[in-house]
This record gives sequence, C-alpha cells and structure tokens, in this order.
Amino acid sequence: MQSELSHLNEECGVFGVWGTPDAAFLTYTGLFALQHRGQEGAGITINDDGQLRTKRGLGLLNDVFNAADLEQLQGQAAIGHVRYSTAGSNLLENIQPLPFNFSDTQFALAHNGNLTNAETIRKNLEDRGAIYHSSSDSENLMHLIRLSKATTLDEQVKDALRTIKGGFAYLLLTKDRLYAALDPNGFRPLVVGKLPNGGFVVCSETCALDAVGATFFCDVQPGQLLRIDESGLSISAYTTDTQLAICSMEFIYFARPDSDIYGVNVHSARKRMGALLAKEQPVEADLVTGVPNSSLSAAMGYAQESGLPYEMGLIKNQYSARTFIQPTQKLREQGVNMKLSAVKGVVAGKRVVLVDDSIVRGTTSRRIVKLLKDAGAAEVHLRIASPALKYPCFYGIDIQHASELIAANQTLAEMRQTFGADSLGFLSVPSLIKAVGLNTGAPNGSLCVAYFDGKYPTPLYDYQEQYDQEQEKLRRRDEPKHVTTSSY
Amino acid sequence: MQSELSHLNEECGVFGVWGTPDAAFLTYTGLFALQHRGQEGAGITINDDGQLRTKRGLGLLNDVFNAADLEQLQGQAAIGHVRYSTAGSNLLENIQPLPFNFSDTQFALAHNGNLTNAETIRKNLEDRGAIYHSSSDSENLMHLIRLSKATTLDEQVKDALRTIKGGFAYLLLTKDRLYAALDPNGFRPLVVGKLPNGGFVVCSETCALDAVGATFFCDVQPGQLLRIDESGLSISAYTTDTQLAICSMEFIYFARPDSDIYGVNVHSARKRMGALLAKEQPVEADLVTGVPNSSLSAAMGYAQESGLPYEMGLIKNQYSARTFIQPTQKLREQGVNMKLSAVKGVVAGKRVVLVDDSIVRGTTSRRIVKLLKDAGAAEVHLRIASPALKYPCFYGIDIQHASELIAANQTLAEMRQTFGADSLGFLSVPSLIKAVGLNTGAPNGSLCVAYFDGKYPTPLYDYQEQYDQEQEKLRRRDEPKHVTTSSY
Amino acid sequence: MQSELSHLNEECGVFGVWGTPDAAFLTYTGLFALQHRGQEGAGITINDDGQLRTKRGLGLLNDVFNAADLEQLQGQAAIGHVRYSTAGSNLLENIQPLPFNFSDTQFALAHNGNLTNAETIRKNLEDRGAIYHSSSDSENLMHLIRLSKATTLDEQVKDALRTIKGGFAYLLLTKDRLYAALDPNGFRPLVVGKLPNGGFVVCSETCALDAVGATFFCDVQPGQLLRIDESGLSISAYTTDTQLAICSMEFIYFARPDSDIYGVNVHSARKRMGALLAKEQPVEADLVTGVPNSSLSAAMGYAQESGLPYEMGLIKNQYSARTFIQPTQKLREQGVNMKLSAVKGVVAGKRVVLVDDSIVRGTTSRRIVKLLKDAGAAEVHLRIASPALKYPCFYGIDIQHASELIAANQTLAEMRQTFGADSLGFLSVPSLIKAVGLNTGAPNGSLCVAYFDGKYPTPLYDYQEQYDQEQEKLRRRDEPKHVTTSSY
Amino acid sequence: MQSELSHLNEECGVFGVWGTPDAAFLTYTGLFALQHRGQEGAGITINDDGQLRTKRGLGLLNDVFNAADLEQLQGQAAIGHVRYSTAGSNLLENIQPLPFNFSDTQFALAHNGNLTNAETIRKNLEDRGAIYHSSSDSENLMHLIRLSKATTLDEQVKDALRTIKGGFAYLLLTKDRLYAALDPNGFRPLVVGKLPNGGFVVCSETCALDAVGATFFCDVQPGQLLRIDESGLSISAYTTDTQLAICSMEFIYFARPDSDIYGVNVHSARKRMGALLAKEQPVEADLVTGVPNSSLSAAMGYAQESGLPYEMGLIKNQYSARTFIQPTQKLREQGVNMKLSAVKGVVAGKRVVLVDDSIVRGTTSRRIVKLLKDAGAAEVHLRIASPALKYPCFYGIDIQHASELIAANQTLAEMRQTFGADSLGFLSVPSLIKAVGLNTGAPNGSLCVAYFDGKYPTPLYDYQEQYDQEQEKLRRRDEPKHVTTSSY
Repeated sequence: MQSELSHLNEECGVFGVWGTPDAAFLTYTGLFALQHRGQEGAGITINDDGQLRTKRGLGLLNDVFNAADLEQLQGQAAIGHVRYSTAGSNLLENIQPLPFNFSDTQFALAHNGNLTNAETIRKNLEDRGAIYHSSSDSENLMHLIRLSKATTLDEQVKDALRTIKGGFAYLLLTKDRLYAALDPNGFRPLVVGKLPNGGFVVCSETCALDAVGATFFCDVQPGQLLRIDESGLSISAYTTDTQLAICSMEFIYFARPDSDIYGVNVHSARKRMGALLAKEQPVEADLVTGVPNSSLSAAMGYAQESGLPYEMGLIKNQYSARTFIQPTQKLREQGVNMKLSAVKGVVAGKRVVLVDDSIVRGTTSRRIVKLLKDAGAAEVHLRIASPALKYPCFYGIDIQHASELIAANQTLAEMRQTFGADSLGFLSVPSLIKAVGLNTGAPNGSLCVAYFDGKYPTPLYDYQEQYDQEQEKLRRRDEPKHVTTSSY
Repeated sequence: MQSELSHLNEECGVFGVWGTPDAAFLTYTGLFALQHRGQEGAGITINDDGQLRTKRGLGLLNDVFNAADLEQLQGQAAIGHVRYSTAGSNLLENIQPLPFNFSDTQFALAHNGNLTNAETIRKNLEDRGAIYHSSSDSENLMHLIRLSKATTLDEQVKDALRTIKGGFAYLLLTKDRLYAALDPNGFRPLVVGKLPNGGFVVCSETCALDAVGATFFCDVQPGQLLRIDESGLSISAYTTDTQLAICSMEFIYFARPDSDIYGVNVHSARKRMGALLAKEQPVEADLVTGVPNSSLSAAMGYAQESGLPYEMGLIKNQYSARTFIQPTQKLREQGVNMKLSAVKGVVAGKRVVLVDDSIVRGTTSRRIVKLLKDAGAAEVHLRIASPALKYPCFYGIDIQHASELIAANQTLAEMRQTFGADSLGFLSVPSLIKAVGLNTGAPNGSLCVAYFDGKYPTPLYDYQEQYDQEQEKLRRRDEPKHVTTSSY
Repeated sequence: MQSELSHLNEECGVFGVWGTPDAAFLTYTGLFALQHRGQEGAGITINDDGQLRTKRGLGLLNDVFNAADLEQLQGQAAIGHVRYSTAGSNLLENIQPLPFNFSDTQFALAHNGNLTNAETIRKNLEDRGAIYHSSSDSENLMHLIRLSKATTLDEQVKDALRTIKGGFAYLLLTKDRLYAALDPNGFRPLVVGKLPNGGFVVCSETCALDAVGATFFCDVQPGQLLRIDESGLSISAYTTDTQLAICSMEFIYFARPDSDIYGVNVHSARKRMGALLAKEQPVEADLVTGVPNSSLSAAMGYAQESGLPYEMGLIKNQYSARTFIQPTQKLREQGVNMKLSAVKGVVAGKRVVLVDDSIVRGTTSRRIVKLLKDAGAAEVHLRIASPALKYPCFYGIDIQHASELIAANQTLAEMRQTFGADSLGFLSVPSLIKAVGLNTGAPNGSLCVAYFDGKYPTPLYDYQEQYDQEQEKLRRRDEPKHVTTSSY
Repeated sequence: MQSELSHLNEECGVFGVWGTPDAAFLTYTGLFALQHRGQEGAGITINDDGQLRTKRGLGLLNDVFNAADLEQLQGQAAIGHVRYSTAGSNLLENIQPLPFNFSDTQFALAHNGNLTNAETIRKNLEDRGAIYHSSSDSENLMHLIRLSKATTLDEQVKDALRTIKGGFAYLLLTKDRLYAALDPNGFRPLVVGKLPNGGFVVCSETCALDAVGATFFCDVQPGQLLRIDESGLSISAYTTDTQLAICSMEFIYFARPDSDIYGVNVHSARKRMGALLAKEQPVEADLVTGVPNSSLSAAMGYAQESGLPYEMGLIKNQYSARTFIQPTQKLREQGVNMKLSAVKGVVAGKRVVLVDDSIVRGTTSRRIVKLLKDAGAAEVHLRIASPALKYPCFYGIDIQHASELIAANQTLAEMRQTFGADSLGFLSVPSLIKAVGLNTGAPNGSLCVAYFDGKYPTPLYDYQEQYDQEQEKLRRRDEPKHVTTSSY
C-alpha cells in the first residue's frame, strides 16, 4: 500500500537528461513518473548553456514547480530528484539536486541510496576542515572528488566512488557533461534510454523512459561510471569487484508495475509472486482481493493460480495523495476513513483472501482486516506476497531498526492474532527468487534479501555496531519468536 | 476514465449532516469521498448554534480547506458541495453551498442536477424585480421559496419544488433544520444514513456514508421532501406524479464502485455490463485490460465471461489528479505522456481487448489505442461497456450538444477507423438495463437512457427549441450516419 | 494615526474610469492611492467590450491582484473598491464591486458610505420575496433600481437614489455606461477627472486623479447623478433638496494630505487646524512633534504658529502596514513595540508638545505618551487637532456607539490622567470650521460636525431608537461627564 | 529615498540575542526594526536547548515568517538577518543565517558587510578541497575557523578574523555561546543592549534595541570579539591595529533616524547636515521640502537654518513597500505614479527647495523634479545633504562601479540640466564631518568618506585591479568632468 504512513519508504528517484531542448520539461515529466519513489521534496538543476541553475522545494513535484518555473529553466541538459526524507530531517538544505558553486566551476548532485561509511568519511574530512551543509550523506561524494589528486575529472570521480560504500545511484551534472554511477552491488535500479532526437536519459526506472518518449537502451551495471557529453555516451568501470544484489523490495513494492528491471517486468514478477504464494499458502475462500494499488498484481496472480475470482474488494480514494487532514483517533474508531474503503456489495458474507505485498509495522494490516470484517466479510485470510521482514536495510530503504518490524518481534501466530485475520501466510525466499527469475548467476538470484535472512552482501561499516547491539537485544528476550514462513 | 478532459463531467456531489459534533469534519470527509463528482470547487456551510457560516473556494477540497479552517467550523449540522463547473463559469459566486442572509434568518443551498425551466423562472422573477447573484440555476429555488404564499416553511419549500423542473437533489440548511429533496424522476442519487450517535447524513452516494462511519438507512425516493431536525427525520411527498428514471451514467461511469444505488452495487453492475458485453461483442484475443480506473470493473467482467486473462495493461499515474502542467503538442507526439502508460511487458505482441466504460468525443480512445500499439500490442479490440452516446443530457450531465458526441456524427466503421482499433463494439441498451437489474417496474428498468435513444422521460421546456434545431441539423446531413450497436 | 486598531476606520474608497485602454491598470493604480481608505478587501470590475467581469478578495490590493490578474482584466471601463469591513463581517460576499448578473444585462456596484434606512428597505423588500446576498447595505440600490417602474435606466436609478437615505458615493457600471451618484448632503467626497486621452475618472479623492495622471475636472455636488458613456459626461440632479455637510473627519484624519476636497487642500487645512490649536491651547515647551503619519501636518502648523521647533520625535516603521504578528501583552509591557518608536536623541530631557489628529478610544494616546516618557521626555503635552469625539456617526465612519468614545465617558481631567499626559487640549468646533474654510454658505461651514455636537444634519431613521437609548444611558450616569473643549 | 530601485542598498542587518525566552520573537521584532537594511530575504536561527534550527526565505520578514513559524522556534538564544542581495544572486542558499552542521557541533552565521580578500581566500581553500555552498563571501569565516590550528574556539575565531579583510559585523551562534565581531575599521555599526531580565542583545542599530525593550549597553569597537554565554558577556580584541572609519552613508541615508551610532543620533546628525547645507548652498525660495522618508530630517534642518517654511510637498504612499506592480513606460509618461506624489496645494506657484539625502544614478532625482514641476512648482532648487558620490564602496554598500554614479560621469552643470532643476548644490565633505561630529580623534572625523574622495582607509586587495582599470577608463575621457561641490 503506497503512501501509507506505516509502510516502507524508498529514499529517492533520480532522472537526468542530456542533449535535448525541453530538458527541464522532460525532467519534470520523468520525475512525475517517479513520484512514487519520494513525496517529501523535489528539485531540478538545469544546464543552461554551461550555467547550472537549481530550483528545489519541499512537497510533491506540483507543489514545487509550476508552468512558469519550467519555462524559466531553459537548457539542453538537466538532472532531477524526488526525495523521501526521514522524520526530522525535512530541511530544504537536504532537498536535491545539491548545488555546488566553485570559483571556476559548478556541479549538481542527485543521489538514490544510502552509504554505509558516510559517518567515517565525514568525520575524517571535517577533521581536515571540511564544511558540510546538508545533513544527508549524499554530499560526501563532492568532497571526495575535490580532494582527489587525480588529474582528470573522470579519474577524480572514480577515486571518490571507490571510497564510498553502500547503495548508490548517482547523477552528477557539470557544465559540459553528465555522469551516472552505480554501486558495486547494483542495490538500486538505474537505466539508460535514448530520445528520438539522439539525446540520452538516465533514470531510476523504465517507466520514466516511457513517460518522456525515450526507448530503453541499457541497464547500468554494478560498478559502472557513465559519462554523457557532446561526443555521446561512454561507459567504463570504476571497479571490477562487483556482484549484482538488487534490492528485492524494488520488485515487491517500490517500483512501478510498468517498469522493467534488468529485463524483468515488475507487474509480471508480482503476478508470479502471487501465483507461487497461492501454491505455498492455499486457502478455501470465495474471492481474492488486493490492497490497492501496490498489491493488485500479486492478487491477480493468486486468483489466477488458485482459480478463485479476482475481485475489487477495496477501493483507494484517488485523491488521497493530497490530503493532509486526518481524522482524530475517536472518529477513526467510529469508522471514519478517508483513504481506503471496502466494497460491501462484494465482500459481505464472503470468505476473502486479502493479498498485501509486504508487512512492516503491521498497523495497516490490522486496519484493513477490520475494514473488511466491518463490511461483512465472513473470513479474511491475509496472504503476503513476500517473505517476512525481520532485519533492517542499510542500502536505501527506510527500515533502520529491527524493533520497528512486527515480524522481528512476534511469531506468525501472534501476528495473525494482532491483525485479526483468520489465517496468515508469507511467501518463501526461494519462491520470491524464482518469481523474479533473474539469471545473472549471482547468489540469491542476484537479489538482496538481507531484510528477510539477515545476510548482508557487504560489510556494514558504520552500522555494524548498532546492528550487533540490536540483534543482541532481540536475542535476549526469553523465547525465539522469529516467524517461520509456514501458514498457521 | 475519470478526470480526463474530454470525458463526461458530473455536475456535483452533495453531503449534509445533522445532529453530531464534528459536523464540519464529517462533511469534509464525506465530500472527500465524493470528490470524483466535482473537482472545480468546494464549500461547506456549518450551523453553529443557529448561525450559518460558509467557506467555499475554487479547486479541490484540499485547496479550499485546511485543518485550521475545519477547526473554525464548529457546529452540530452542516451541508457541503463539490462542484464541476462548465467552462467560463468557474466564478466564486457559483461555488456552493450558496449562502442567503435575510434580516431575520439564513439559508444555505447545495444542488446536484440541472433544471430544465430555470431560464423561464429567472426571467419571470427578474421582471418582478428579483436579483440573481450567481449565474447558476440553483438559486431559483430560494427565490421561489421566499415568494411562496404558503404559511409554513415546509409548504413554501414544497411549492417551490413543484415549480421547478428537471434533475435535482437539493440540500437546504436553516438555523433549525436540514431539508433534502429529490426530483420526481430521481435522476440523481441521494441516500440517507445514520451515525452511531443517532445523527443523520444525506448525501449523493453510499461511499460517503461508509467514509464517515454511517450506516445506510434508505434511498430518497423521487418526489420526496425530507426534513431533519431536533425531533428526527420526517419524510413526505411534495408530488405523487413520479416515475423513477435514474441516470444510467451513474452506473456506467460516475458513481464510485463501492457505492450502492437503489440497492445495486455499482462495481457489480459494471462487472455484469462487462460480462454481457463479452457475450454481445466477443473477440479472439490474448488478454483483457481496462482503462483505469473507471473501466476496471467492466474489464474484470469481460475477462471472467470470456475466459480470457484479466491483465494490467495500462497504468494511471496516481498523482495525476494534481498536475496542471501539460506537455506541448510536439512533445505529446514524441510520446511524452504524464497520466497513462502502457505496460509493455504485458501487452507487447499480444491481442488486447481494451474495455472502456463509455465514449464521448473519442479523443481519449484514440490516444489509448495508440499508446497500446506503440507498446507493441499486436491487435487492439475496443469494447465499450455502454451503448453509444448520441443525444445530449439536460438533467445534470455536462453533454449539452449532440455535436460534441462522436457517435452522433460517425458510423461505427468510421469510429473504429478514427480510433485506430482493430474492432469496436458497444453494449446494447437492453443489456445495460439487464446488467443494472433494477426492478421497480418503471420503464427502461427505471433508468434514464435518453442519451442513447433520445427518448426523454420529461418535457424539455427551455431546451426543446435548441434540441430540435440541433437534431434538424444532424438530420440534414446527406446520409444516415447514426451508429448501430452491432460490432463491425 | 492611520492603521492603528483602535482608531477610526473609513468604510471605503471608490474609483471608476471610462474610455481608456488600461482601464484595469488605472483602476488598480487609483485604488492603490486610496488604499488608506480601506485595507480589508479590494475588487475591480472590468467592462470588457460589454461583458462585466469582477475579481475581488480579502486583504490589501496587493494580496488580491497580481500582474497576471491585471493583464486578464482588459477593457475600456472599470470600477474598483477598497473596503474596510467591520468585525465579523469580513466575508467575501461583502467585498465590492458587487456583481449582478441578469438574464439580459449586468451591473457592478461600488459604494462608499452608510445608509440610515437600509434595514427598513431590506425588510420591505424581503417581505416581497427579495433575496439579499451580502450582509452589507450597499445591495439595496440594485433592488430598488430593478423594482422601479420608470421607463429609462436613468430614471430608475434616480428613483432608487431618492428612496435611500444616509451617506453614499455610488459608482454603478453597466455594459454601456458608468453612473456616479452622491447623497444630498455630500457626506463623502467624490471627484471627477479627465485623462489625457479624453477618458473620465470618478473617484473618492483627488490623490487618485494625480496617481493616474488625470486632471481635476469637478467635485460631484450633493444630489447629483453623473452618467458617463460614449457621448461623454452628463450631469443631472436627482433631487434639489440638498445641503452640503461633508464629513469633517475627512479633513481631520481620513483623506490623504495631497488631496483637495471642494478646493481645499487637506494638508493645508490640517496645518491651519494645528495653528489654531496653538492659539487656543498654547503651552510652554521645547519642541513639537506629531504622531506619524496623519498628524504631521497639524504638528507643523502648531510648531509654526507657536514658534517652537518642529521635530521628529516619533518614527513609524514603514513596513508596519503588513505585519500580522503582534507582541504578547507581557512583551508589550517589557517595552516591545513593533510599529512606533520614540527618537530618544530628540525627546530625552525635553518638554514635548505631542500633536495627534483625534482621539477615539484613547488606547493609542496612552501608549504614545508612555513611549515618549520612557524615552526620557520631561513633559508631554497632548494637543488634539480636532474637537472631542462624543457622538456616533451614521454616514460612513465606523463609530457606531458613543460608549466606545473616551470623550463621551470621561471628563477632560480624567482623560488627561488616563493618558498620563502633563496637559491635554482639544481644538474647538469653530476653529475647525475656520481652519477648513469652506465657503458654500451651508451651516457649520458646510461640514458635518455631528460627532462633536450631536446635531445630525438629517433624520437618523433606522438608527434613531438605538441612538436615543444610548444617550439615555449616558445621561443616567450620576454626573455630567462630558468633556469641555477647554484646556485643563 | 528608501526602497527606490535606483538608490543605494545596504547589504544587511543583523540581530542576536542570548539568555531569554521568546528569543525568536525578539529576533523577529528586532529584524522588523532593521527591515530597512534589507528586503530581499530574511532568516532566524534558534538555539533550542543546544540544537540550532534555521528558517530562512526570500522576501520581507512577513513573507518568510508567520506566527506559527515563530511559535515553533522556541529557545533561549537566536540570531537573525535581513538581506539585500545584488541582482542575480537572490538564491535561497545565500539567505542568512548560514547554517553549518558538523558531526559533533553546529554553527549559524550572520554577516553584514563585504570582504575585500574573499576571492583570494576562497580560491586558496578550494585548491585544498574546500566546498562552498553559497556564492556569498560570508561563508569564508566558517572555513577559516575550522582550519585554524588553535586549541580553543575563541582563538580559532580570532585566527579567522585576522585573516579576512574588509567590512564586517559578524554574529556567530553555537550550541553554547554567541560571538559578535567587528572589523578593524568599524565600517558597519554594531551595538550591545541589555534586556530587563539580564539577557544580551547584539544588533546593527539601536532602533532594534528600542523595539525589543532593551537598554543600550555599548557600541562594539573596531577589532573587538564579544562572547556571550552562560557566564555573561566578555569582550576581547583580536587585533589592536584598528582605526575607526565608520561608513558615512549610515549617517546620511541607511540608518534609521531614531538610531544612535557611537553616541550620535542619526536624525540630529541629518538635521545638522541640512543646516550646514543651507549655509553652504543658500537659495531664495518660498519653502523647503524633503524627499520622503529618508530626507525629511535634513529638510527640517535646512528649513530651520534658512528661515524658510518647512513643508510637506511630497507624499510617499505608505503601502509602497509591497507593490510589485509597475506602470509601463507609456503610462509613466502619462503621469501614472504609484509611489510618490506632489502636494499641488502646497507647491503650485512656489519656489521650492527640494532636499534629498544623496544622489546615485540620478534617475530618481530627475523624476521628482519633474513631479514637482508638473504640480506647478515655479522653481525647484535641488539640494543634496551629502557630498557627491564619485567612487565605489567595497565595505558593504552596493556601489561597485564608478560608472553607475552620475557624479562620476557628469559635471555639476550637466547634472543640473539632467535633473531639470533650477539649481543644484551638494554638501561639502568638511561639513559632513562637522555635522556628524564624532570626536574619536581618527582621520575624517572617524568616518569613511572614500565614496566622495577616493581615499580608502585600507588596501583594496582583490578589488584593486578592477578599481584601477575603471579609474583609468574615466581618466581617459577627453575632459576632467568630476563634479566640484560648489553650487552652479
């Protein structure tokens, strides 16, 4: 369920374009297609004949930019960013692209991901006198580039990329080129497209390529640095020590259904997750319904595999992206609900299979099960089209503590009770891997599944100590409570 | 396809509540659930201990009201309105509820529908010295009430209601009561619900009852006047010359899928339309997909009946309710598209059945067919889950001229070519009536189907002359071009 | 002291123009020059080739109109209005010009003043079925025009004007003409100017003529109706029962110093008031200072006549027109002051004559005397360049109750003590009349001085009863407490 | 004439407070009193129990802060800034206070003035890898502090202050203290006050002390560093190589009349300038009037000394601080004027002495002379209460090029003709010095008068080359055209 408060939050979407008039408008359009990746802030930097100008602000793209703004951002190249910011840090300073003005040159930087050694780098540089302006970790790259002793900008950027660790898809705009870089594990997606007029686009998802009329050219590979300039696109590797481990949550929840990641269509992958879930966690019921909008694909897959009718049991108010007004707790208990509603005519008296993509804190699940029961559903069988989330992510998803995750704190039986569901079942990790079906030969089907099994594909650097302490704390509690992915 | 410019526009949604604290908040929540019925303006009138206060403005509900506004609107009763205004008349004066301040009393009026003798009434009253402030026809009722010689307000209101003709669902708030009235044909839906604390709600659709935690009490019947006050709800008839002819477009397109109208769930009715369409207009294909969001129900029905897989072939950007920025024609031709996108991974190489709810001008249909073909669809078979729109509506839907309707101007073969579809088929009127399945004994299954067959259930009064001229003009064109609802 | 909360508030300024491109821009400019007459709302109606369009809103002119708005208001004629609204009635409905749309024609109405028989007219018309939309009394005129049996619009307007009583300067715009009308006593100022291109301007003060580059043509005379249309300006009288009694507060406080009223420059009149005040209320002191900005002229006159140096003892923050943030009472007591400050370097150790234009509630006076004393002034002698305000006004100034007026409730000695001044003196009525120096032969030098002596130049109609009750109440208090205008 | 586009612009005002609840509100109030020093942007940093939070934005204080903002900024200490930004650099990044977030601490910096070796410092630091975020020179100090090898923050700050050159009044807020520093020449004013509760205030002008109810404590002296913390105020010197040369334009035009600078009241100093001007540049005339608001003091002095009556010949629209709408050139030529107007009743037929404080480009002077003549003035004798501006300023006033200064390009005779005045006269430098009357023993009466005589009190560092080139260019023109300060 996208944009519910208690759900996961991707940290960003990036979009860059080189070599086309209307660069700002295309960037706006591309970011609009990526708006689901971040709703707290947005920005665009235009390269106007060698001069970089940035406009950024808090809120949705439409809060930040109007038609007049876009008309003023004239240029042949641009980068843009939509941001989700963690609570308390929604400062304008952190909204990207980050602009950097030097006596002799300018840069603008957009980053999707999270670094694992940012704190160490920052402390080292601050000890040498460096000044940071944002509180985000994205700024590190710029400092490292400026401090590199290499003689070309290409090599300075590579130096810097080799120093940082974690998950990152970077776009870096200068007066005469656009760089794009991906971390050695390819945690975050990044794709290249071509415009009809020969210009290039680099962005987080292929849905943004479609939105601007670009054709897919290639996925950026782990460890690659791309440079796009007057002479076209050149691709090189800043490291060969790479291994694809793309974030599985991109397939499960984040990415838009119409996007393809490394050749795999996201909607189709979700349908397969639903189908495999139906095999692993079958149940006798009258109909299948999904939590709109992110779980509809999996629900279709579950229905098709199980032979149960696929139904519209829940409706999401299509204007809910924009309401800041919330009912009080008292009104909520009286049944006031502004975002979701159950279709009584469909669910009343029926045994319902409710498919959701994933469960974080569990608050939403409890609410939706109650909504269906209040609408007269005879039974509600909750089926989650992904494994249980039990470990934090350090590569760009906003789950920083296991303590926030219900599946790290309750058994399957406890959770079922918490949700008020008649049964509960999760997809297994092997089925998730099979449903995605990437065949690059890397472990775990080239996916990062660390939130499910706690096996991180890289050292955790600055986060290791915090992680160890939290795990110790969880272990000390009387009994093993970790969920098993079998049905209860 | 809701909120596309070239589609139909309902003229309004109304919501009223009596006898509860948080009256303004509930009205806000109810209007939020009715936002699909009007996006150009919104307003709320609160009854604050006998004093009426109105706040209204242009734009979506969220543009007009913030949390502070709602806190200031304290009272035990309220009415509200969301409005679609026809081009050129989006004046603040026309946003409802319309407030009326007299020396000794106050009224507030909210209206969904369109009167057919408004012009005549207005001219008569103006000749007597009356002053109108809005340019909308809603104001007439107030003038008529004040001019009535009857001795009680109840009778004055009934006098006024008997004078006006056309489609109307009225809410009228005073210092000590809330009136609700429906026209003698029940063209527009209007339902009553009860709050947990005993208060009453009257509103356009049951989805708004669900949103505020009210339980369905009854549908308002044609010709009824309801009065809600301290002593509860009393229902009387201002006329007995009634015959239900509810607007079939409510079932086809306007109402929310989770609403029930006269006991019929809208989603389920649409699914049946889709299923009957599959029977009447079958086609060999690989999958079925609907135009999001309003055609998904019909597409599910078509898929289920035909045995073809139901797929997500099109995605609607969930933030599109709020973008005011449009690509230029040139960019649009390059493939830039901000609202809809095709899921290439689903449709490429496939024979697609594309289900849409209805066709007005045809511009959107052409665009969507092209979108699917550009995404690689092998064939696109367009199936419309309603009969062809050929005649204007005078009871509250914004189709004022047959010349705007493609089906009044082109044959089925011509339309197919215009849309670039491989085949085209509409639902028949009998199947529409069967799909809805209302059994009140009134003609046409108690539906108004005049936009399909030109047989209006009432005289047209002020519109008759204009209608005759237009029909004459269409008739004079060389050949009979009216569409037949068989497949081509 | 303009724009202090506790001071008087003029109810409006009006501006109309006929026969010039840029009509909206000129109206905006003219209203900007009249902004001191009303800060709560503003509006402009343009005549765009026979079509009237109105834009209006709450706040200062600059809050309501931006450059884009003005560009959209293209036309050859326009009227505009700036409004001060009394507490609680700052509804958008009351912001003028009031637009009226009839089936066959349109009107827009702007009014400065206050009617004394509005309530009676309204009740009569409502009993006949009339509907009022605003709660202001301005709307009456339109109703009366429409109800007139006369055969020409000219005569209908005159009929209506003869029915209403009180103070009014009206502008009425139609598709083909602009009317201007003044009440039979000329309570409010209204002047005509000519543009370089031959167009006409009618507005509240000559300062607005200057602002738009128009030359003064004539003052509108009491009882006149002006019509401006294609064939030029024609002036007629709707009544001959007239007697000039222009509001003396226009000279004392409201009007801008650069305006001329019936040939008398306002600044110069104020200077003469100050000079006569120096003669009537002399005092031994070191310097004279005025309360900025409205009392500076009188202070100059006092200084010049007395031979004392004129000094800048008080500074008004020039951004204070726009601050909505107020210090708390606690901070205010600590000396926090956002609008006015004393110039210590000027007043410390000095005996100061403080000249203010008038005193309403007295709160401001007490605050300013304290400000000077805190800044080290040895003595503060308060001199008021007008007689003591003791009676309400019913012709357009916002003093509705004698109970609000300190001089109706305290003796001179009590007031002096309340203010903390070392002495206190007011100007006498005869000196006020002499200072203005109008020579039309009407009583009181053609001025209305009723707020000083309670002798109203017209019957009070709807207000008589309320007035009698209040006076009775004041009389019943133990002792006669009315101020005498001699020094204490 | 403040806020006219063609006039001088001070680069900022600063305000800091330590040790009081309501720190943000007092800072807001103080900045409101300093708004005349900068209208393009404003910001406040609060110290909320050791955490610094900054809010800043473009526009007037009231555009940036509302009451809710101030309530959220709770803390015991704060600094604030109002900014004038030169064209093209009005970026949010440049609005102060500049916030700096380090891993272990935070700083916020507010700066009034201009550095002369900023470019050199920046280039040096960038070569070492430093990253600048703003394009302003204010950021240098923070970099230098962090690079200092000294062991205490006090010494690090002093190190940094000794490195930078030019004009500066700095406020630096940390979690546990507030620093204030003044350059070795004291180019910009900076004063300390005490609050009733014992807290300290440091700000640009004493008018801000008065506004917040603080009492004057001391002027900060050239070369001083002040530290305010829990233990109170401590003052030390970071250099002893100092010599007071306070910007004479502060006395002439910038500072508010109610402020005292080094014990000299600004209004009184201006009055003395006017009086000496009357002696040096007498003329036969009927009255004296000043350009509102900044020249009124000098005009009073001229009138008093000359024995001519002081009059209100010009009125400034008191709402003009907020209009963004400008008449077109064509309308301006027709006499449309939104900001200033002449009082015809005062000036018609009269010989007017028009006193202005200074002349920069001369455009405003020409406009005002024309305004008076159009209003019927028989003669206009322009008298400037300061010497002719002929050289740029590098210490914080926005005159960067002599080519912008009319007096650097035209003779007195040419200027008189350009302005259309009947005569023209400037004040001499010795009289300016005498009028201010500072007696600290430093040259030029402790004033910087370099804009008049080109003798700068410090080396020009980064600006020397540019200055030399411009002077050479001026010299090369055929004839010596520099103005002499005698009357023509």
